[in-house]
Amino acid sequence: MTKLHLLLLGILTLATVAATAQTKPASPWSPELLQQLRHLHQAALEDDYAYGQAAHLTDNIGPRLTGSPQAAAAVEYVADELRKLGLRVTLEPVSVPHWVRGEEHAALVSYPGQVPGTQQKIVVTALASVDNATPAEGITAEIVVVNNFDELAAMPREQVAGKIVVFNEGFDHQMVAAGFGLAAYGQAVAYREDGREAAASKGAVAALVRSAGGAQFRLPHTGETGYDAKLPSIPAAAVTAEDAELMARLAAQGPVRLHLVLTPKLLPNVASYNVVADLKGTEHPEQVVIVSGHLDSWDLGTGAIDDAAGVAVSMETAQLLKQLHLQPKRTIRIVAWMAEETGIFGGKAYAKQHAGDVANHFAAIETDLGAGHPLGVNIGGDEAALKLLQPVADVLSKSGAWLLRSSDETGSDIIPLKVAGVPTFSPVQDVRTYFDYHHTAADTLDKIDPRELRENAAVVAVLAYALANMDAQLPRKPQPLPDWLK
Amino acid sequence: MTKLHLLLLGILTLATVAATAQTKPASPWSPELLQQLRHLHQAALEDDYAYGQAAHLTDNIGPRLTGSPQAAAAVEYVADELRKLGLRVTLEPVSVPHWVRGEEHAALVSYPGQVPGTQQKIVVTALASVDNATPAEGITAEIVVVNNFDELAAMPREQVAGKIVVFNEGFDHQMVAAGFGLAAYGQAVAYREDGREAAASKGAVAALVRSAGGAQFRLPHTGETGYDAKLPSIPAAAVTAEDAELMARLAAQGPVRLHLVLTPKLLPNVASYNVVADLKGTEHPEQVVIVSGHLDSWDLGTGAIDDAAGVAVSMETAQLLKQLHLQPKRTIRIVAWMAEETGIFGGKAYAKQHAGDVANHFAAIETDLGAGHPLGVNIGGDEAALKLLQPVADVLSKSGAWLLRSSDETGSDIIPLKVAGVPTFSPVQDVRTYFDYHHTAADTLDKIDPRELRENAAVVAVLAYALANMDAQLPRKPQPLPDWLK
Repeated sequence: MTKLHLLLLGILTLATVAATAQTKPASPWSPELLQQLRHLHQAALEDDYAYGQAAHLTDNIGPRLTGSPQAAAAVEYVADELRKLGLRVTLEPVSVPHWVRGEEHAALVSYPGQVPGTQQKIVVTALASVDNATPAEGITAEIVVVNNFDELAAMPREQVAGKIVVFNEGFDHQMVAAGFGLAAYGQAVAYREDGREAAASKGAVAALVRSAGGAQFRLPHTGETGYDAKLPSIPAAAVTAEDAELMARLAAQGPVRLHLVLTPKLLPNVASYNVVADLKGTEHPEQVVIVSGHLDSWDLGTGAIDDAAGVAVSMETAQLLKQLHLQPKRTIRIVAWMAEETGIFGGKAYAKQHAGDVANHFAAIETDLGAGHPLGVNIGGDEAALKLLQPVADVLSKSGAWLLRSSDETGSDIIPLKVAGVPTFSPVQDVRTYFDYHHTAADTLDKIDPRELRENAAVVAVLAYALANMDAQLPRKPQPLPDWLK
Repeated sequence: MTKLHLLLLGILTLATVAATAQTKPASPWSPELLQQLRHLHQAALEDDYAYGQAAHLTDNIGPRLTGSPQAAAAVEYVADELRKLGLRVTLEPVSVPHWVRGEEHAALVSYPGQVPGTQQKIVVTALASVDNATPAEGITAEIVVVNNFDELAAMPREQVAGKIVVFNEGFDHQMVAAGFGLAAYGQAVAYREDGREAAASKGAVAALVRSAGGAQFRLPHTGETGYDAKLPSIPAAAVTAEDAELMARLAAQGPVRLHLVLTPKLLPNVASYNVVADLKGTEHPEQVVIVSGHLDSWDLGTGAIDDAAGVAVSMETAQLLKQLHLQPKRTIRIVAWMAEETGIFGGKAYAKQHAGDVANHFAAIETDLGAGHPLGVNIGGDEAALKLLQPVADVLSKSGAWLLRSSDETGSDIIPLKVAGVPTFSPVQDVRTYFDYHHTAADTLDKIDPRELRENAAVVAVLAYALANMDAQLPRKPQPLPDWLK
């Protein structure tokens, strides 16, 4: 999408809002529609279709790393299931990275007080990026531990060059407990994303990052790390909180040397797909409400809360509407995005492929913060939508989802639509344990509570049907394109 | 120890109790002694010697598996540290098993809905025993999942023969939360201990046991498993809760085949030692109060809460008495037991070596349930000791350790002394998280809260000094020898 395009869109949108403001419209919520929403809400709370789908995606198909056979199988599976429901399914091409994890292990091979002939194991997991491998036999170097970027920046280059930088930024558990989970994650994940480049720019030979998550069970947290062609491509891995602290304590006593083996490979891109499935609208079939989650996952666990849950509640929306014979006025489009984890490739591809049709995208919903009890609805974009949707919140409050709030947390895959002015939504979820599990080997089906998944399906289905049937326009607020979308 | 010996001990003990009852004795707690106990209590709450020792044992020495170089180094280290404090140190021989973990991995290689060319990883860890390896290339067989021994017993042999039995007994988190941690562990650990034999007796080719712990972070829990020379020695491993549940769900859908590689080895026994260090008593040097923890650990983590903590608070007792120039009337004997995990070999060897001197063992304390906040003192043996020790509990109540209770939970290593009539003690600890970590890779120093470790040191030091200085005998209650001690 060009900037000019975006500007034009903005002007059109403002014109629409101004037109709407001139005459006070009738309520967009007819008594019949509200009755349908209550009915849908109750049916969702009694249905386990979503759980069954999440189980199949995780137990039978397994981890769905971008470019993997399981990701390909998941595309076919979800497409087939949605066809079975009677939706018109299109596989929209996305070229995706094909990163493959290799060997990964590390050990402290020399440190103060070491028992001769023994080592201390360091639990590592490679981060996905370009050129992130050590030689097959590994590398061995002294470590230098820093708590944050500032400490590294303050060090003379000769104190870092030739060494392995260990970033020991802790995860703020209290922020999570107090309801600011994504903010806590944002703080910690900066080191996973940018630590490699920061270390490379000081001449380090590798970077180890304390896992950007809440778990304290010797559990490493994988994910992407940055790549800058102008810097040496040094190996980077996540270490567990326990191992980061061990290294910090030992390095405070004297020199510590670490042996690191990481042999991931970035293979040529693979042709993959967003699954795009339409339940045609009866009155405005050209207008679209997207209901979505991302189909790809990391490879350590089976991607249950990140994000089989999001795909499953989206599929459940279609299933419930079919089951209850509810026909949306606008088209409800179920999307299972591909390659969110490795760079939001599906979301970006969709925005490009549908650039000419953005004005017809009435709204977009994504669920991508797990399956915890939903407390309400996040609204990205113009806050004026809050008041308009109060009657929907009243329906959802029956299962505890009373909150309507303006928020930036409406899902990565729909950011390209959001900046183009499409109103975006996501369930407000209880994420108190989400950051303990996602991106780790422990992201498995048992982390989904069937009852809470039903509650999420209820929020998403009711919201989607409400948006597809409301007799009003939503305010649209295009935003400047972020750098990563240019 | 013979049964006759035990009987004689019992008669002698009863005679002592009867004699004590005839005349009301003066209080065993002089105001001076109580003042010393209060002083000692306060000093313990301000001292980090124990934490420093736990840190060295775990960070610098590392895991201390029976028979390993680290276990040998730990013996030398603790002996040296106690010599530095001025104690008379003896290394008392214990012949210990030398079990070495090898390769260990597993995967589901065929299951319903499998994506061709892919597998589902199963996280396993070998259990320690005799002949517990698969061939180097592993074995592959269908699994059969049972929830408990009864389900297995009810199955016809042909349904089990040639298969891999998966025991999916869950861990009762609510029991733990309600304060019955050891009981919950006892329920679950029965499968780790006896599952292998139960499966072998039905013709199974391997046994997998759901981890006997509370963690739900894809974390396996190692430990011993049984061996019966009359049964085939089939391989046995622990799997994580997540993987046990995955296998149960898939096996309910159709046949599931698993590939299992375990290559542990049991090498010839190694000469090791209990570290026995005496702070001589001034009035009754021949009478001994044991203060102890076990020095060996499992190999996955670094054995911080199991049981560097117990050794550290025992060492702290000696350090505090020296620091405060407190001289016990009876001998305080710090013991760091060897090979508790692999069969209580140190505890059994000590009881044998000191069989002729059991009557001089006034009391024995062991700390082996972590480093959680202590709530009081467990008393093994005769309940009459409860009332006698109330003034000690009054001192300890200042740090929240108000409780005195009769309990069987006074430590494995001192069971041989307990059955011979020696009164035994342990801190009552908050074990709500203990079973999440012990025997796993996450048993690391960070699981010890320095303040709570000081509180434990306070309980152990005050109790030890009180027992060593009290002007009364404790009631002794010999018990029948359990089978495993015969």
